[in-house]
Amino acid sequence: MSHPHPGLGAPPPLPVEGLRIIPLGGLGEIGRNMTVFEHDGRLLIVDCGVLFPETDQPGVDLILPDFTAIRDRLDDIEAIILTHAHEDHIGAVPYLLRERADIPLVGTRLTLALMVAKLQEHRIRPVTLQITEEERHSFGPFDLEFLAVNHSIPDAVAVAIRTSAGLVLHTGDFKMDQLPLDGRLTDLGGFARLGLEGIDLLMSDSTNAEVPGFVTSEREIAPVLDGVFREAGKRIIVASFASHVHRVQQVLDAAEAHGRSVCFIGRSMIRNMGVARDLGLLRVPPGLVIDARDIESLPDRNICLVCTGSQGEPLSALSRMANRDHAIRIEAGDTVVLASSLIPGNEESVYRVINGLTRWGAKVVHKGVAKVHTSGHAAAGELLYVLNATRPSNMMPIHGEWRHLRAHAALAELTGLPAERIVLAEDGMVVDLVEGQASITGAVPCGYVYVDGGAVGDVGESSLKDRRILGEEGFITITAVVDAAAGKVIAGPDLVARGFSDDRAAFEKVRKMVADGLADGMRNGMTDAGALQQLVRRIVGRWVSDTYRRRPMIVPVVVEV
Amino acid sequence: MSHPHPGLGAPPPLPVEGLRIIPLGGLGEIGRNMTVFEHDGRLLIVDCGVLFPETDQPGVDLILPDFTAIRDRLDDIEAIILTHAHEDHIGAVPYLLRERADIPLVGTRLTLALMVAKLQEHRIRPVTLQITEEERHSFGPFDLEFLAVNHSIPDAVAVAIRTSAGLVLHTGDFKMDQLPLDGRLTDLGGFARLGLEGIDLLMSDSTNAEVPGFVTSEREIAPVLDGVFREAGKRIIVASFASHVHRVQQVLDAAEAHGRSVCFIGRSMIRNMGVARDLGLLRVPPGLVIDARDIESLPDRNICLVCTGSQGEPLSALSRMANRDHAIRIEAGDTVVLASSLIPGNEESVYRVINGLTRWGAKVVHKGVAKVHTSGHAAAGELLYVLNATRPSNMMPIHGEWRHLRAHAALAELTGLPAERIVLAEDGMVVDLVEGQASITGAVPCGYVYVDGGAVGDVGESSLKDRRILGEEGFITITAVVDAAAGKVIAGPDLVARGFSDDRAAFEKVRKMVADGLADGMRNGMTDAGALQQLVRRIVGRWVSDTYRRRPMIVPVVVEV
Repeated sequence: MSHPHPGLGAPPPLPVEGLRIIPLGGLGEIGRNMTVFEHDGRLLIVDCGVLFPETDQPGVDLILPDFTAIRDRLDDIEAIILTHAHEDHIGAVPYLLRERADIPLVGTRLTLALMVAKLQEHRIRPVTLQITEEERHSFGPFDLEFLAVNHSIPDAVAVAIRTSAGLVLHTGDFKMDQLPLDGRLTDLGGFARLGLEGIDLLMSDSTNAEVPGFVTSEREIAPVLDGVFREAGKRIIVASFASHVHRVQQVLDAAEAHGRSVCFIGRSMIRNMGVARDLGLLRVPPGLVIDARDIESLPDRNICLVCTGSQGEPLSALSRMANRDHAIRIEAGDTVVLASSLIPGNEESVYRVINGLTRWGAKVVHKGVAKVHTSGHAAAGELLYVLNATRPSNMMPIHGEWRHLRAHAALAELTGLPAERIVLAEDGMVVDLVEGQASITGAVPCGYVYVDGGAVGDVGESSLKDRRILGEEGFITITAVVDAAAGKVIAGPDLVARGFSDDRAAFEKVRKMVADGLADGMRNGMTDAGALQQLVRRIVGRWVSDTYRRRPMIVPVVVEV
Repeated sequence: MSHPHPGLGAPPPLPVEGLRIIPLGGLGEIGRNMTVFEHDGRLLIVDCGVLFPETDQPGVDLILPDFTAIRDRLDDIEAIILTHAHEDHIGAVPYLLRERADIPLVGTRLTLALMVAKLQEHRIRPVTLQITEEERHSFGPFDLEFLAVNHSIPDAVAVAIRTSAGLVLHTGDFKMDQLPLDGRLTDLGGFARLGLEGIDLLMSDSTNAEVPGFVTSEREIAPVLDGVFREAGKRIIVASFASHVHRVQQVLDAAEAHGRSVCFIGRSMIRNMGVARDLGLLRVPPGLVIDARDIESLPDRNICLVCTGSQGEPLSALSRMANRDHAIRIEAGDTVVLASSLIPGNEESVYRVINGLTRWGAKVVHKGVAKVHTSGHAAAGELLYVLNATRPSNMMPIHGEWRHLRAHAALAELTGLPAERIVLAEDGMVVDLVEGQASITGAVPCGYVYVDGGAVGDVGESSLKDRRILGEEGFITITAVVDAAAGKVIAGPDLVARGFSDDRAAFEKVRKMVADGLADGMRNGMTDAGALQQLVRRIVGRWVSDTYRRRPMIVPVVVEV
């Protein structure tokens, strides 16, 4: 979090009959969802995901939850409950298992299958426990019940957590599609049954709390896809998320209906759809799916490619097609469908891909012009159903930026929950549920943990600040070797500038200024390398500022011999 | 343009009765609109705007049209026609006037007033000619007629250009609001009259060509604002564009109706609203507008602040309020209205501001949740009206990325224009109108010209590529002084790394590796500084890659003494 928690210290000892809830991610941001529950000296973790960096976190690959608060207590962890297999819920598990390998992972069939595949890439073999909805399992003092929820990936669950402190319902990510493709509804009846029992704390997905009304059913995309397939004269290329089994199912159905063979492109798409098919979650008619090398043998009107890259990822097949840097050469008359959301921050990249494809003559169908995507998260109208069905004593909006959390809190208040029963917390805040009342009692350390390349945590705010400056302004190094005793510059000064200017000739002038400055400085008794470096920095800094009105990073290296 | 124009060479000589059209900006991008017309050896320019950089153009302040194609012919320019005073239409004028100061600037009252104010900041006093709609003026061989258009800034015009080659209608930016606040409609009747006369080429705004239907009238924002003002219990802060006089007028009207005084915040807002008021384009009731220092003396419920910053600009008053870094301290109960579009690419910054404001307890109303903004550009339905009213012989979509230009071309085809009469060009392509047929005949040099700080053009693709690497990965410099003859390292190696890692201790190991490598190299007869630098680069590069899987920029400096 960029915000500290002023006035919040370490929390007081947890009463014996209390439940402590520590969100380590997902509150104040969309991503790296992770909640730690503590009761009777034991810990339970729900989800352990990654956050994708924003543009002011350059060069960062992933952002992890900060494990500091639990690092000394890894042996107290009973289990990690995985509500579903999206990266923002499971992506940080490999990094936590590096710290303790045998924490049991608990999840449904598809969730564990995708989790295990991911851990294989990290060469980790986890301990797993497969569960299904309507089951109850105990992990130490935590008695858990799983409930089906509908989301943009199959096999997602909510989890009810019973302890002697009370009953907590954690929804995970969900929406309330009333006509889901696979018939697997969010278990609102189960939520209501828990409500009758008495929910002491509802923790509910806030992602779409600002969006009024209801999310369109996934089913309504089929006729739109059908129209696209009917009109397309040449190849069809559909880009979506590699985990969106239901969306891909609809593409397969449309392809089958219109006599097109389907080819999956890209490692994650091929792998995930293989897993989904093996688990019976994706229906693949025999002979429909073909291999990439068979594309050439079919007429364009019989081809449908399914790939990732719908967020404009520069290395994806779709981006490379847009740049004519892929074996699939986009031609006039091809149809490309971006059957996905447009995640905020990706607009420039996505539009760049759309413009590239359009330039070659492809028709691009995206959610801005046709209903080819629907969200996976409950909108305000659906959240009200859940609030009214569960009637919790306390409510804590989770999974969202501040604007989402506040909007969800406002909805809860509209349903009659008193403001003092709504806990607006952010990452690192400690919420204690004691005697039926949830309240913020303190805070734990909770920063951004950056993964960059193969290393975790060594890139921090200092490096990122430097990257922001370097990325905007570049740098200039000035190297000089001096004999301070003799008052002479022996070698240099030599300037190297990168990212500063294409005009190298301009440096000749400042080189002379630095040489003169160093000579002057030493003549006036300046012999210390540090002082001479400061002098060089001042000379070059003033020249750059006067000449260019810019502020590149200036790195003077004066070596005394 | 990032795309070259393969197969297009310099255009052939222009026939005497021909009109040449060279778009130097705005085709293939949203911004830096500029079109050069050539006839009978003379040039006419319509608009000369700037483009704002994307994230892959870091550190760049502005992007100018490339003046290369006209640099040798500045004396042939008859005039620059300015269709309206938005930055993407006038922002590059100061840079063109630096090359020839006395090119006449032609525009309406408000357009010239804002243009002159801008040029004052550049210490340029232009030659101007004020025109108004329905007037006709000749500039050399170009006979011009101006027609009123409605847009998100008052006083915008389209321009009809008559030469012996035919009649061209250039719409500038426009929409077709049928109930505009100021009663000044887009002159569709005039367009139709020109259509009867026979339009040889229609050049029309494509920005919203992908958007189906019609743009909501500006007038429909009033009841929404009224609702916001009625419900707000404390201060209201409205952020909008500093040129959106009609939007600000509606805010003033709402403030007056609800007993709130208005304070303009920020230099551009204060300046522009002063100009608009002086020209009678903004109605300001006496006593309504107060000075910033009088805010403290009024109760919160009587205050309405109007500022810029609706795009999340980090230095704007609104961003600073969101960070509690401004004299106006946001408190629970304040209402902030973002009465503006969300320009693609600004989402992260805008949501950051919204989250910051929300975190302090402000209610934020934006176009995602209420109808507080309407576009300034005609949507597909409106573009069809223009196409049908003008019935051009040739049509050329302008002002847009490829997706917009293609969508506009598709609309033109739907109205019955044959595909071969639709010219899909991009920046730098040369379009000749000869004997009633418009076609692409060649291309001129046309690159991005970057303004960074006080300098124009010295930052090019090479510096930007370096910035992208530095911004993602940082750099490591290694300095060593060697006596190659003696085979000894005299000083160093010293490592300086920035933006690479916060963990400085890690460098000790590689320092030793470099020292050993240099000693080995010299022992084996390597005496050339260049070769030793390559050696250092290899050692450090391999270490970084093995240890971190990263690729920072590596700058070895080996000095021989």
